[in-house]
Amino acid sequence: MGVTPYLRLDLDVLERNLDAMAAHARTLGLALRPHAKTHKCPQIADMQLARGAVGLTVATIGEAEVFAAAGAGDRFIAYPLWVDADDADRLHRLAEGGVRLRVGCDSAEAGAQLRGLPVELVVEIDSGHHRSGVAPAAAGTLASGLADLGMAVAGVFTFPGHSYSPDEASAAAADEAGALALAAAAMTESGISARVMSGGSTPSAARVQAGSMTELRPGVYVFGDAQQLELGTIDWSQLALTVGSRVVSHARGRVIADAGSKALGADRAPWTSGYGRVLDEPEARIVALSEHHATIEWPGALPALGSTIRIVPNHVCSAVNLAEEYVLPDGGRWPVAARGRNH
Amino acid sequence: MGVTPYLRLDLDVLERNLDAMAAHARTLGLALRPHAKTHKCPQIADMQLARGAVGLTVATIGEAEVFAAAGAGDRFIAYPLWVDADDADRLHRLAEGGVRLRVGCDSAEAGAQLRGLPVELVVEIDSGHHRSGVAPAAAGTLASGLADLGMAVAGVFTFPGHSYSPDEASAAAADEAGALALAAAAMTESGISARVMSGGSTPSAARVQAGSMTELRPGVYVFGDAQQLELGTIDWSQLALTVGSRVVSHARGRVIADAGSKALGADRAPWTSGYGRVLDEPEARIVALSEHHATIEWPGALPALGSTIRIVPNHVCSAVNLAEEYVLPDGGRWPVAARGRNH
Repeated sequence: MGVTPYLRLDLDVLERNLDAMAAHARTLGLALRPHAKTHKCPQIADMQLARGAVGLTVATIGEAEVFAAAGAGDRFIAYPLWVDADDADRLHRLAEGGVRLRVGCDSAEAGAQLRGLPVELVVEIDSGHHRSGVAPAAAGTLASGLADLGMAVAGVFTFPGHSYSPDEASAAAADEAGALALAAAAMTESGISARVMSGGSTPSAARVQAGSMTELRPGVYVFGDAQQLELGTIDWSQLALTVGSRVVSHARGRVIADAGSKALGADRAPWTSGYGRVLDEPEARIVALSEHHATIEWPGALPALGSTIRIVPNHVCSAVNLAEEYVLPDGGRWPVAARGRNH
Repeated sequence: MGVTPYLRLDLDVLERNLDAMAAHARTLGLALRPHAKTHKCPQIADMQLARGAVGLTVATIGEAEVFAAAGAGDRFIAYPLWVDADDADRLHRLAEGGVRLRVGCDSAEAGAQLRGLPVELVVEIDSGHHRSGVAPAAAGTLASGLADLGMAVAGVFTFPGHSYSPDEASAAAADEAGALALAAAAMTESGISARVMSGGSTPSAARVQAGSMTELRPGVYVFGDAQQLELGTIDWSQLALTVGSRVVSHARGRVIADAGSKALGADRAPWTSGYGRVLDEPEARIVALSEHHATIEWPGALPALGSTIRIVPNHVCSAVNLAEEYVLPDGGRWPVAARGRNH
């Protein structure tokens, strides 16, 4: 049986997913800069770069350090960093040897903190997700202010996170394209060229039009997850990562498995069918999740006590960040090297 | 500023919380066997044992191993274990030197897997949470079946998890008491003495009556969290653990802080006000949570960019399990030694 729960990585599926997104970006003429926060694994970053990715996207300085140590590509920290003196030292080290380092910025104040550091700024805009980022029309003013501080401004980026809702991906992709165009025009008007127009979530990536941006930053596409399945972004054959879990109880005629929120993550968007899905049993429903129990309503005969089932987490980024390693079909292990690197 | 997000542990509050639960259990004449899955930290286990805890509760063999290595008390794995040969070896090692080791069991099949191992079984019953466990009336049949296999049966346990709902804690505590009494009677009738009658969640613990059980197993009480606050189990002065988080953006007039679901956990029960609370600002609402962003609607003037705020996670067990260490007020660090020990 082995130790459960564990992250089971199917390399064949992973490779197909990587190939497909690389081909998609090539067809559209876009640079692919995949978000490595999903996998946190140098081996997978190398596979992405070998397929033509121009570099990596990361969420934190700590993730950038892990991939820099592994030698993988250049890096864009797609986050509105607010840096202190320690962070500044770390950014200096990340840029040693002239490696290109880009960081997000959504305010003049945050830009002032970054002054003098060997980074290119990318202005974050809000394309409808309403998280961080300035309004697209304000990108020109912010960019010229940053340039006045002596900073290099490479362009604009956005995360169309409102694509994570049923039937919203096309509208979110259209919002994203419109916002990037508006922001780039505002920057041009302010005398700054938006060489980089960066966008893309996994749900919206398939809907992106050629010419609407220069760079795509999807993350989850490498593995897929139950959210992507239920959004219709992928089908079952595209699920590369599952959580191997042991059936420990048949209480009340249901399956109780040993993968809980400490293995799967507690993510549950209101539109999901439950706390994940079960591979090979599409009709099963994970109706409750404790820290170490998944409660699963199962159609027909229950899998035997002690048997292993494969659970598809709702949000694979969360599940990966709870584990130390991936288990490959041949028993090999790859590290989740950037696990917990939240800063 | 330091590295954010981080787990900030207030020792004064922790000690008051530990003292109060120890006194509560003493007053009721109950053994206190706190659930160490919440803190995963030998230093805190030692503080609990120093205040009279009879031993620890853990969720997994791996957690038991961490606390055994630290020498802390004896252990009850309050989980319906299904063991394979490796697990059996680990249980043998855990019991070396005659240390008492109890494990949960809710089926004859799981009991058969445990046959010959140096463990006492505690029959799990369902007192209304409807997760694992047999019906209380079935405890006698299961216990006598396990005894027939040559197993030592110590008694019964339950987790009244339905106490995690507004205004349900008293009813859940009553359900728990009734179920334990019924199960103990069923065991007696089957010729097995239920020496152990173990119960208790943090919300129900305050409602437990003397004589309704022999042992209490609360976990979250050590730190408190936003769920306990919103359930009314605790007040703000009892919050010992917060996540120090940096304000990185004021986009759209809100606070964007750098503690997301990879620091706080994604837990969000339907009855909560948001994805956690903010210490010192009861009116703030965490309206959205991404992996590295908390979006907070803030009353009045926003805290400055770059300042640190303290976020109270919804479910502290999840937040602790995402971090490597606690940061103490004096800058000291305690390890989350059992982080990720899911098996």
